[in-house]
Amino acid sequence: MTLYIIGIGLWDEKDITVKGLEAVKKCDRVFLENYTSKLGVSVDKVEAFYGKKIILADRELVEKRADEIILPAKDSAVAFLVIGDAFGATTHTDIFLRAREKGVHVSVIHNASVMNAIGVTGLELYKFGKTTSIPFHNENVEAPYDAIKANRSLGLHTLVLLDIQKDNHSEKYMRVNEAVNYLMRIEGKRKEKIFDEATLCLGVARLGSKDMRIIAGTPGKLLLANFGDPLHCLIIPGKLHFIEEEALSKFQ
Amino acid sequence: MTLYIIGIGLWDEKDITVKGLEAVKKCDRVFLENYTSKLGVSVDKVEAFYGKKIILADRELVEKRADEIILPAKDSAVAFLVIGDAFGATTHTDIFLRAREKGVHVSVIHNASVMNAIGVTGLELYKFGKTTSIPFHNENVEAPYDAIKANRSLGLHTLVLLDIQKDNHSEKYMRVNEAVNYLMRIEGKRKEKIFDEATLCLGVARLGSKDMRIIAGTPGKLLLANFGDPLHCLIIPGKLHFIEEEALSKFQ
Repeated sequence: MTLYIIGIGLWDEKDITVKGLEAVKKCDRVFLENYTSKLGVSVDKVEAFYGKKIILADRELVEKRADEIILPAKDSAVAFLVIGDAFGATTHTDIFLRAREKGVHVSVIHNASVMNAIGVTGLELYKFGKTTSIPFHNENVEAPYDAIKANRSLGLHTLVLLDIQKDNHSEKYMRVNEAVNYLMRIEGKRKEKIFDEATLCLGVARLGSKDMRIIAGTPGKLLLANFGDPLHCLIIPGKLHFIEEEALSKFQ
Repeated sequence: MTLYIIGIGLWDEKDITVKGLEAVKKCDRVFLENYTSKLGVSVDKVEAFYGKKIILADRELVEKRADEIILPAKDSAVAFLVIGDAFGATTHTDIFLRAREKGVHVSVIHNASVMNAIGVTGLELYKFGKTTSIPFHNENVEAPYDAIKANRSLGLHTLVLLDIQKDNHSEKYMRVNEAVNYLMRIEGKRKEKIFDEATLCLGVARLGSKDMRIIAGTPGKLLLANFGDPLHCLIIPGKLHFIEEEALSKFQ
């Protein structure tokens, strides 16, 4: 039979594609990868709309006991749902490769992810460079600063993803304010004017929802801004085209 | 009322999201931006599934007569459908800005686009640098070569989009083979070993469809490979992680 790896989009139960929903309805087991991202609605709501019981897949199940997802797909239809698009993290590629290795037929159904939905800011997607991310434990981490520096040297925008810590006991999502604070700290140490007090940046919250919030401004402004609930991400634009400038002016 | 800018995904009538389809069904007019990309099925099939007449919007309508799309959205519901995600080209951002300027409420519904669906190759999305594109008239064009060079200097992958020429009279889509031929020509001139005979590259055809074809190999191999129908794109990987190497080995 088939392992369907299905992107279910960014926010709620209706962000799945018609093709994705048809596949889910055929499946005997439906897993939801539940530790690298976050939906805007409860799993109950998704279950009710899909008409299927959803098994929440934590890091341990996906990375250590993947056979529990893959092997049933040898003789039944299994859905592995991913928030955003089907391939947002190495772990999704890994499931795909392990399944093929075991002779399981894999079918991929795509959807929006943060990587393309940030086009809503008005920044051109083709002008984004490498994506970086800020972990919670960042005392000795400077890679995000280096990524912004490298992208800016080519005039490119940088998407900065913010850490998620999620297990059975607790959930923690990094906020724009914390990310700005972190980058200001590294700037204070490195002093290379990659993220100084005048750097234009964009904080984005709840991308893909009706309640999305985008605020553009200096680090000082974003540090104090209230972005509300997660998920948040941060964008450091590079060289701006005039259409991009006009788009950003709406968020200032 | 509302102008809905809706990404309809990469391939067929069922790639639209449930939310997108619900919005389309509410609309009095439905436009499809029809010159920057290509669906894998006929517009008739899409019309039948959506239950709506679709008005094909060519470059002239979108860029010169955008008011014909925007102004009716002042007092009725209008859909502006985009193949892939809602913001794939500057022209989509422009429609969004012009509509807001005229006091029209705009609602955006996202979907997959080439920018994230290429994750299916196994290459990590966060390691892609600037996206470039090869135009048909490329006698004096070296920007794609420079983009690959800049990305590779940072170890990053490059997505190369291939030109589309579409008007009321004809359609023309650049093939992987032509793109490889073009890059070999620039390499022959520049001799900077950015795209030499040993460079690993990936040709991708019909991304997001069941009939997708991915072939990895040297320029010489891709030059002769048969990728079939459009759309095609080309990827020049940068530095590979071992999971990426394993993924690519399936396409060699």
